[in-house]
Amino acid sequence: MTKEEEEIKRICNEVIERIRPDDAERARVKAVTDSIIDLINQKALAMDIEAHAISVGSTARNTWVHGETDIDIFIMFPEDVPEEVLKENGLALAKSISDRYEERYASHPYIHAYFYDSERITEYEADLVPCFALKDASTLKSAVDRTPFHNGYIMERIQGLEDDVLLLKLFMMCLDIYGSELRRKGFSGYLCELLILNYSSFVELLSNASRWCYGERIDLEGKGKYKGEDPLIVIDPVDRNRNVAAAVSEYSFCRFIDAAREFLTQPQMSFFLPRVPDPMSAEEFAKQVKNRGTVFVMVLFEAPETVEDILFPQLRKAEVSITNLIERAGFKVYGSDVAVESGKAFLLFELLIWSLPRLKEHMGPPVTSKYHSEQFKNIYASTHRLFIVNGRYTVEVERRYTDVVSLLKNELISCSLGKDVSESIGRGYEVLRNEEIRFVDGIGYFLSSYFRGI
Amino acid sequence: MTKEEEEIKRICNEVIERIRPDDAERARVKAVTDSIIDLINQKALAMDIEAHAISVGSTARNTWVHGETDIDIFIMFPEDVPEEVLKENGLALAKSISDRYEERYASHPYIHAYFYDSERITEYEADLVPCFALKDASTLKSAVDRTPFHNGYIMERIQGLEDDVLLLKLFMMCLDIYGSELRRKGFSGYLCELLILNYSSFVELLSNASRWCYGERIDLEGKGKYKGEDPLIVIDPVDRNRNVAAAVSEYSFCRFIDAAREFLTQPQMSFFLPRVPDPMSAEEFAKQVKNRGTVFVMVLFEAPETVEDILFPQLRKAEVSITNLIERAGFKVYGSDVAVESGKAFLLFELLIWSLPRLKEHMGPPVTSKYHSEQFKNIYASTHRLFIVNGRYTVEVERRYTDVVSLLKNELISCSLGKDVSESIGRGYEVLRNEEIRFVDGIGYFLSSYFRGI
Repeated sequence: MTKEEEEIKRICNEVIERIRPDDAERARVKAVTDSIIDLINQKALAMDIEAHAISVGSTARNTWVHGETDIDIFIMFPEDVPEEVLKENGLALAKSISDRYEERYASHPYIHAYFYDSERITEYEADLVPCFALKDASTLKSAVDRTPFHNGYIMERIQGLEDDVLLLKLFMMCLDIYGSELRRKGFSGYLCELLILNYSSFVELLSNASRWCYGERIDLEGKGKYKGEDPLIVIDPVDRNRNVAAAVSEYSFCRFIDAAREFLTQPQMSFFLPRVPDPMSAEEFAKQVKNRGTVFVMVLFEAPETVEDILFPQLRKAEVSITNLIERAGFKVYGSDVAVESGKAFLLFELLIWSLPRLKEHMGPPVTSKYHSEQFKNIYASTHRLFIVNGRYTVEVERRYTDVVSLLKNELISCSLGKDVSESIGRGYEVLRNEEIRFVDGIGYFLSSYFRGI
Repeated sequence: MTKEEEEIKRICNEVIERIRPDDAERARVKAVTDSIIDLINQKALAMDIEAHAISVGSTARNTWVHGETDIDIFIMFPEDVPEEVLKENGLALAKSISDRYEERYASHPYIHAYFYDSERITEYEADLVPCFALKDASTLKSAVDRTPFHNGYIMERIQGLEDDVLLLKLFMMCLDIYGSELRRKGFSGYLCELLILNYSSFVELLSNASRWCYGERIDLEGKGKYKGEDPLIVIDPVDRNRNVAAAVSEYSFCRFIDAAREFLTQPQMSFFLPRVPDPMSAEEFAKQVKNRGTVFVMVLFEAPETVEDILFPQLRKAEVSITNLIERAGFKVYGSDVAVESGKAFLLFELLIWSLPRLKEHMGPPVTSKYHSEQFKNIYASTHRLFIVNGRYTVEVERRYTDVVSLLKNELISCSLGKDVSESIGRGYEVLRNEEIRFVDGIGYFLSSYFRGI
């Protein structure tokens, strides 16, 4: 065993002791889970609803990281129940057993509820999700119906590999690439479990990931039919047409590969400690702006009241549209990012070129095109000096916007922004430049992450 | 006849009276030409040189514009004379008959001499050019050997069309596109004559030219084999593999088309009056710079002592190389031009972007390329913050040159500039910006032509 291998082993052992739920925690979680299931099943009988509850997710599989206990209970309805009945009865059942809950919405509505263990030591959070009990994962009515199949597949195979799953999840969390939400575009818990199943251990996975190529394909059952072009393709064992890693962005993919190589060659405990950046202060920011010589422009508006998985794709779309608007006008973007904090949405652009001369070349038709040349000259010849450049008539016109701030103040709304973002921006927005950016509402954290790098 | 046609006829008649040499002028030129030929032939006999002189060019064909009298005398040697003998005897013969002359050099050396007419009223300039008398234009020893064939072809056909040739030549002169020198890249006298032969009149040529397309092909003898891709292709009737219009630039081609259309629709005497622009003053220039918002940078150096046809292609090459240097460094050129005046060479660049932030993104290898990633990190990881952008490692480095003037002051000599220009610049050059540009040495004319348009 090399020195690095020994060090890796030492670190992993130390980490696992820290994050593996102890027997008492496991027993408490199991007791709470069982009691919720019992309550639902009893209520179903009492309310004459044909449904039963099952435990799924990391708490069902013993793959939750200490302190990250999310209990997932699925309330299973027969396939032939109409969808509206499932929703109505499912939510009614879930609400009937909870003292404190919120109604939430993913692809389907569900109940997020709070339960104490029997000794009232710890309060646990649980998602109570109505779904259809299908015979076959290929006849899905909605994405949640797939979960019980995932649960079954992992439950049957994961025993003995739980510690490796825990290490991988914490590793991903500390890289900020854990979770398939569209804000993060990282690795889901289920994907982590499949990766461990495929490579048989955390270290073996890292060793393979350090040599991954774009389009890396993993197919545990060898029956994949998925044809997409994603950075990472992990065929869903319960649905051969689906890529479990479809949400993994190029960035998350690369970040994981990079960290895998780094950890294997220079193992350090820091890979398992969350990086909490200090917020950037106004003074630090001013210093950065001066050193870099660039200009920062921030578009600031009220965050639309919509779930993150809808809001973030819209913000990313706006980021691309606005970058295009800026560069079509002749300016140059160096970098950009988006964030939502304290009810505000931010679009940040760092500019290499933010100001241009008034003068602009307006290109006309080729001189050899007689008809179009006449049209062009009718418009311009009496008011503009004509030039011939590369065989075309050109005239010198005034640039409409000579700086990025005036461009954004006037043309932002013409961009393709996404429905909710567009509506919110339509109600008003600010365009702030360099020192006008106010260090409130978490902007300091946002900016420090912008400058941080990997 | 339309109103425009009448006006065109009136203008052309007026112009032709002004520029057609009168009988006295013609007689004087003929007398001088004949006397030069006689002198050469007598001297050849006396010096026992087997050679005879002929008159070629516009004075031989009665197609010279009043005041533009260039007498061309070719001294014809038998094909079997060795080239060195031709040069030696040809120049000796030419010198022996001239009191005042200069030795000049095109593709071959020749003598430029001065002769008075018999009444000593006018001094004429004549080129005395030794060449081979060939049987067939396809067995050329040098480009000058083609001239007697051109002369024969035009002499046999041009009678009656001389006035149209004169109108065309003056039209081209006033557009500044007459002459095939590489400084101008316009229409040669021979090309003008062929165009008139082909279209039978000046007005008919304009009418056709107003509909010319890129790659327009004219082949009087219908035997052309030329395959090049020039804007205008006029097959040489005495050499079917040659394009007489090869020197015509896209600009000259377009300029002629544009003027043809303009003159036909709005005939004006101004088309036959040379445009002599006023030189721009320092004050006017400063005002232009302010209005345009751009920055002008001029590279100034001693003009190499070489003929224009060698110098100008080198200056144009330098213009392109330096534009590429500027744009590779991230700046943006709006326009550029070159000039030679009073022994100085000028390269002018007008910039849309002349200054950039210190910050520069340096792109590394794709993260998935393990070997190159390690190399890149070995170089940068200890000193630079790493980012992952579009699947590649990147670092932020300092831009070497943040303004165009410092770039040119330091890197100009690394450009591909052409031998003579490179040597001259190697001996020293200046880079001047906006108000530093000194209005001496014809710079005022150069700048006013830069801003003038068509």
